Amino acid sequence: MNDLIYETVVSTVSTAGVAHVAPMGARYLDGGVVLMPFRPSATLDNILATGHAVLNVVVDTRVFAGCVTGRRSWPTVPAERIPGVRLQAALSHVELRLAGQNDDVQRPRLQLARVHEVQHAPFVGLNRAQAAVLEGAVLVSRLHLLPPEKVAREMAYLQIAIDKTAGPEEHEAWSWLTAAVARQYETQT
Amino acid sequence: MNDLIYETVVSTVSTAGVAHVAPMGARYLDGGVVLMPFRPSATLDNILATGHAVLNVVVDTRVFAGCVTGRRSWPTVPAERIPGVRLQAALSHVELRLAGQNDDVQRPRLQLARVHEVQHAPFVGLNRAQAAVLEGAVLVSRLHLLPPEKVAREMAYLQIAIDKTAGPEEHEAWSWLTAAVARQYETQT
Repeated sequence: MNDLIYETVVSTVSTAGVAHVAPMGARYLDGGVVLMPFRPSATLDNILATGHAVLNVVVDTRVFAGCVTGRRSWPTVPAERIPGVRLQAALSHVELRLAGQNDDVQRPRLQLARVHEVQHAPFVGLNRAQAAVLEGAVLVSRLHLLPPEKVAREMAYLQIAIDKTAGPEEHEAWSWLTAAVARQYETQT
Repeated sequence: MNDLIYETVVSTVSTAGVAHVAPMGARYLDGGVVLMPFRPSATLDNILATGHAVLNVVVDTRVFAGCVTGRRSWPTVPAERIPGVRLQAALSHVELRLAGQNDDVQRPRLQLARVHEVQHAPFVGLNRAQAAVLEGAVLVSRLHLLPPEKVAREMAYLQIAIDKTAGPEEHEAWSWLTAAVARQYETQT
């Protein structure tokens, strides 16, 4: 049985000062955070170079859908205790310091220690449309690997939760995903 | 375009003092909460009789999977400012007072005003397995209406997120749902 993996957004800064925002699965272990980025990864490069990262807890799913459809510029504000930035959209964020790593050619494991954390807005409940956008973003990130009929069937299933429970943010995120699926099939025919 | 609907758990108490816990979609409108329970509904009866309810923000998805598989006894503790109870498992809860209603033979609309709210634990991120359990609970609540092959296909799709991202709570919740699906098909053959 695996550990619980949360879908978060990690923000890092390069040594040249360029911010990078990436959706990433995170595990909470031993009081800290474990990330396992797939190489090549700007997040990995930045963490190894600077020793810091910020984990953002985000429920505005436009960030997840945006990052897999070419929309990677999300407003950030400076972190409070480490060099770095956090997402403006974060419900909460955790400022992290690299504490250890197990290197791996494909997927190194980074252990990060908590330096500081802040809640910015309350969490008001689970929403099926937000979950559908996350799943749709996973599908869109693997479009080149998946049979079109599988993608179409799963997007149709996810559409149900969008139609029933989405608000404006989720509708906007979903529209980016359905456009990406449509573009993929246009170029294939 | 609809309003965002959150999957919450509403706890109420009858005039005889019996607690009732029910998963329910909730909308946050005009600073309050709108519930639209389908008749017949013990939650509706209790709110009309007592004038109060508690909205629980819950991410322990065993409550959702449990309530559709005959496990409705979840630990509660007394509310702070209204007569009523809140779930022990709630990340946060909102104590509510009935402020208005539009009656309907099928689905009355209840407007509830916030009396008091408390956060008990931080929200630490979206999790795909929790979302899969919610979707599985929706499927299980409609087993008698759905073709078996549709249920099997959608459960298989949801299983992916369980395998990749679940922790012990989500595995337990998922096991209740898969058992309910298996029981349904046994009785059909």
